[in-house]
Amino acid sequence: MIVEMRTGAAQEEVDGVVQRAKELGLGIQLNLGTNKTVVALLGPNTGQLPIDIFAVLPGVERVTRIMKPYKLASRDFKSEDTVVSVNGVEIGGKRIVVMAGPCAVEGEKQLMAAAMVVKEAGACILRGGAYKPRTSPFAFQGLEEFGLELLRQTKAQFGMPVVTEVVAPHDVARVVEYTDILQVGARNMQNYALLTEIGKSKCPVLLKRGFSATVTEWLTAADYLLAGGNDQVILCERGIRTFEDSTRFSLDVGSIPIVKKSSHLPLIVDPSHAAGHYSVVPALAKAAIAAGADGLLVEVHPNPKEALVDGLQSLTPSDFARLMTELRSIAEAVGRYI
Amino acid sequence: MIVEMRTGAAQEEVDGVVQRAKELGLGIQLNLGTNKTVVALLGPNTGQLPIDIFAVLPGVERVTRIMKPYKLASRDFKSEDTVVSVNGVEIGGKRIVVMAGPCAVEGEKQLMAAAMVVKEAGACILRGGAYKPRTSPFAFQGLEEFGLELLRQTKAQFGMPVVTEVVAPHDVARVVEYTDILQVGARNMQNYALLTEIGKSKCPVLLKRGFSATVTEWLTAADYLLAGGNDQVILCERGIRTFEDSTRFSLDVGSIPIVKKSSHLPLIVDPSHAAGHYSVVPALAKAAIAAGADGLLVEVHPNPKEALVDGLQSLTPSDFARLMTELRSIAEAVGRYI
Amino acid sequence: MIVEMRTGAAQEEVDGVVQRAKELGLGIQLNLGTNKTVVALLGPNTGQLPIDIFAVLPGVERVTRIMKPYKLASRDFKSEDTVVSVNGVEIGGKRIVVMAGPCAVEGEKQLMAAAMVVKEAGACILRGGAYKPRTSPFAFQGLEEFGLELLRQTKAQFGMPVVTEVVAPHDVARVVEYTDILQVGARNMQNYALLTEIGKSKCPVLLKRGFSATVTEWLTAADYLLAGGNDQVILCERGIRTFEDSTRFSLDVGSIPIVKKSSHLPLIVDPSHAAGHYSVVPALAKAAIAAGADGLLVEVHPNPKEALVDGLQSLTPSDFARLMTELRSIAEAVGRYI
Amino acid sequence: MIVEMRTGAAQEEVDGVVQRAKELGLGIQLNLGTNKTVVALLGPNTGQLPIDIFAVLPGVERVTRIMKPYKLASRDFKSEDTVVSVNGVEIGGKRIVVMAGPCAVEGEKQLMAAAMVVKEAGACILRGGAYKPRTSPFAFQGLEEFGLELLRQTKAQFGMPVVTEVVAPHDVARVVEYTDILQVGARNMQNYALLTEIGKSKCPVLLKRGFSATVTEWLTAADYLLAGGNDQVILCERGIRTFEDSTRFSLDVGSIPIVKKSSHLPLIVDPSHAAGHYSVVPALAKAAIAAGADGLLVEVHPNPKEALVDGLQSLTPSDFARLMTELRSIAEAVGRYI
Repeated sequence: MIVEMRTGAAQEEVDGVVQRAKELGLGIQLNLGTNKTVVALLGPNTGQLPIDIFAVLPGVERVTRIMKPYKLASRDFKSEDTVVSVNGVEIGGKRIVVMAGPCAVEGEKQLMAAAMVVKEAGACILRGGAYKPRTSPFAFQGLEEFGLELLRQTKAQFGMPVVTEVVAPHDVARVVEYTDILQVGARNMQNYALLTEIGKSKCPVLLKRGFSATVTEWLTAADYLLAGGNDQVILCERGIRTFEDSTRFSLDVGSIPIVKKSSHLPLIVDPSHAAGHYSVVPALAKAAIAAGADGLLVEVHPNPKEALVDGLQSLTPSDFARLMTELRSIAEAVGRYI
Repeated sequence: MIVEMRTGAAQEEVDGVVQRAKELGLGIQLNLGTNKTVVALLGPNTGQLPIDIFAVLPGVERVTRIMKPYKLASRDFKSEDTVVSVNGVEIGGKRIVVMAGPCAVEGEKQLMAAAMVVKEAGACILRGGAYKPRTSPFAFQGLEEFGLELLRQTKAQFGMPVVTEVVAPHDVARVVEYTDILQVGARNMQNYALLTEIGKSKCPVLLKRGFSATVTEWLTAADYLLAGGNDQVILCERGIRTFEDSTRFSLDVGSIPIVKKSSHLPLIVDPSHAAGHYSVVPALAKAAIAAGADGLLVEVHPNPKEALVDGLQSLTPSDFARLMTELRSIAEAVGRYI
Repeated sequence: MIVEMRTGAAQEEVDGVVQRAKELGLGIQLNLGTNKTVVALLGPNTGQLPIDIFAVLPGVERVTRIMKPYKLASRDFKSEDTVVSVNGVEIGGKRIVVMAGPCAVEGEKQLMAAAMVVKEAGACILRGGAYKPRTSPFAFQGLEEFGLELLRQTKAQFGMPVVTEVVAPHDVARVVEYTDILQVGARNMQNYALLTEIGKSKCPVLLKRGFSATVTEWLTAADYLLAGGNDQVILCERGIRTFEDSTRFSLDVGSIPIVKKSSHLPLIVDPSHAAGHYSVVPALAKAAIAAGADGLLVEVHPNPKEALVDGLQSLTPSDFARLMTELRSIAEAVGRYI
Repeated sequence: MIVEMRTGAAQEEVDGVVQRAKELGLGIQLNLGTNKTVVALLGPNTGQLPIDIFAVLPGVERVTRIMKPYKLASRDFKSEDTVVSVNGVEIGGKRIVVMAGPCAVEGEKQLMAAAMVVKEAGACILRGGAYKPRTSPFAFQGLEEFGLELLRQTKAQFGMPVVTEVVAPHDVARVVEYTDILQVGARNMQNYALLTEIGKSKCPVLLKRGFSATVTEWLTAADYLLAGGNDQVILCERGIRTFEDSTRFSLDVGSIPIVKKSSHLPLIVDPSHAAGHYSVVPALAKAAIAAGADGLLVEVHPNPKEALVDGLQSLTPSDFARLMTELRSIAEAVGRYI
């Protein structure tokens, strides 16, 4: 942590900073510059220390954190890649894992049809939402427990693990009974009550990036899960909110190499929510794999025209099958396979 | 809702849109342009209809919503201003209501000291967090129930209503026992499980704008509370995330006239979280009142240097007293009072 | 400048950094942390040194600049406020200076009518564009030299100084013949060829903030003008681009206290381009003065319905007169006058 | 263009809109909704008509443009792909075109060394800046004419076409003498004086996207060049400014499919400026090709540690050679070649 004093700060102001640092057991290095005094504070946990503690002291102009605020999710903490294993499917290994299915579970027929086509095309995990966090209270909110039941049946019939979202802390225990991977949606990335509850379970969890969270905040949110004792964490980039409105969100493809460098956790990409339109999904999916993602989460609907939620960004079965063929070539080009 | 067909769309594609609209009971107006067909769909609830229903149909290029997605929070729904009354304090009336106090309840002495100074300076509601949603799992998370107890004691002693945050659906019933206003934090603006639970209570609620929520999304989140039966909703602008980093967030002062025009709900402003630094708070507070806000939520700490949370953006008692004097002049200049 | 080495960086990597710093004549302070080495580099011009020089060296993880990249525009360089004097009108003094008039000069009648009403209402500088940078090549591009001529006549008749935009380096000499203040538009804030040319003139210049420039970049652009020898620089905040689309841009009201703290230059605000709609302009104008701006640049058109450019954000003469009355009260509330 | 009237707008207000539309020769279609009147305006040039003309009329709530503001750059105007041919190198065809070289021309030895390595690795166009638009007036501004001369010599020796930036309208004629492709930098995308001047030349031009320009604004800027008579336009995506700061800019990979759908112009990607760090460049480069870009503009320096500009984002010769090998596989996976 670097504490920069104001030009002309008094000696007792510098002393105040040094005093506070000593109280906190930090190492101190004073730099008496030509027109500024800069104090470097050293210690193993300075990343977790609020910068306000020093920024608020008299004579201080600015405090810069050198250590990252996240810890357990970092490569400094664990250097080898984490591989999350779900019923024999490994996420974060050499194989690119494609999770696909409808945005929302709408009924038995729809879910079974979706499972069949995505499995046939090469997806190995089925997605489908039973609890839907919707912007408007007047919109379809999901089939809830009945949706979970349908996921269980479909999983039994097709032998595919499933991923589904949980939106409230008190639902965690129930959803864990039905799913193989818990999904934390973008709007809940900083829902700490929810993260804390999921941290207590041992169920693999897919943590979507909040659409205006920095990579650092995202990895710090992962620390909530890891600190709670759940180390089966999969990250999911799904686009950030920017001024550009020709796509629903802007896929932050740059976050892929950044996360791979900074963290040991596996990372997949959701091209569907970023795109917002089926015609844009394939380009984003291919870009994600080329950039180094470990997998994808893709919305596929047997009949997008009849979808209750997000039909516009859902691929048809034939579009998805074509995309999978293209993805196999890309995966190979980067030394992986699907 | 305006459905724009692609250049050269086939007649049966136009028919498909018309057919779907008829099924949904919408009025239809066809515009056969020189090189584009545009279909206008009319009906009382087109604001709540997902645009995907039409956007996904063959031959459609773009769908534009004319009606807003929010309804109960809109001035179209209720034209006169809503005034929320809290123990005799009216929010949304001619008086500017200042809520002030520490970010977090840290102990009895701190809270009592804060209450004394803010009351003396003219604040009429005491703020203080007992449950703190923190970015890092290693940071101080609040005193929880003991904090609520301290709020109750302080309220009894100073006769000031209190506002405090609730972060989980299962805590709502408990927090309501202690507080006069429930606060929904920015990170929870789209935590629908929480909003639904609060909607069921009759307790006044302060809904902070998510830091990357549009005004439209914010008012749609208010609809969750209103649709649940809680009409005691106060909105709170607290800055949005932008590329500018010299302040913690960018106070969206333009949202004040926009909300006043679009909604009947009272609107206050939190200058402290937007500023991130005590030296910037007064300018933002004055701007907010000049622009038409109904009140403020300001962080004041008896001794910011010792604050456990957000000390840097907290005003000292004397800074706060000085600001209140300036605010009285501004309030008068816009025909109001504090 | 703080150079942070990677965890486990080799001794020769640290030596490489030290060596490069010595070549550049910088002071060096080594901090050997528990798991990171941090090197502080000291010298009077480290703000102007590209950080890449060190960031690119082997073993370096990150370089953080402590000094700001701007110099001449900073309060550290000149502590007392700069006051720009234009034909007896002082900008940056106790008086709030209102510049008003049409977006574009459209004709003699329009400009004279505008000058009359804005002068009567209390504006002391007339604005009007003769060269219009337009997003589309098919839009009205301004009356050019004829527009300048009309500005000269109007100025002669009403005795008001004028401000008008210049868009190309080769036009600077000509425009200076006609105007009292040169305006650099937001899209040209980083048009260095233009800034360099204006820097050579001694004509007062109003430098609009680029709509996605940080405050730091804006003040660094001012350095181009100041370094060229033109110290008559007025800054103008006009809103930044964010995800929010209910206003045309988001007025960054927080930039007002930040600029006032960081720079000695006078600062005015353009509420019209930020708002994009006449109904939002008054709230932004009042907020700007309450927050400490030294003046305003407001679009007023004698008949907005007939305006060729930006009619929607132009105030009518009566709306402007009403706003001026309100602004007088706000100015007084903050210890100033109009 | 869709004009939405306010709820309860008077008949004469609707008539006013109709009257104005008739004056402009537009077709009119009235939609009398249950609680809103909506007027659709039809005509071949409604995309170029300012929406303010109607938005400013009494009783109007909102105006939505259906036609895009750009015209000549659109696929509606020209459906087949434009291929720009530069000394036998085709940009926009089946071959992926890699342009590479140093950010700035620093001297003969550096430029020759760069040309040799990038040519050997498979690049077919040499990049190098002679005029450098720099944020700070105290930074290295380029070798200017001497730099152009070095580009000419290098080109002669290696037989590679060159691309170099032009920053001022009065330099266009001179730079055209030396270069094969004129580059318009991101900060100049809306420098209309410069675009107009370049539009008059017949020299191929690479138009970088402004870092906070929407795709629509970018294509409208291309219209300036096309309307001026220069149809040799290449677009270049280089990242947009967002809140995320772990990369220098956020590469908007989604703009690739959007531009390909909306425009006939070839599109390349600059991964170097988006990344800001050499370690992030390869992932972005691969993502761009996988998503459908027609080429790349990559910064390569024979010795990044000695670079005067942007050394941190420059690839070393060996890193670039390795990247080219990987790109060949990606290109093949999407049915193209390098």
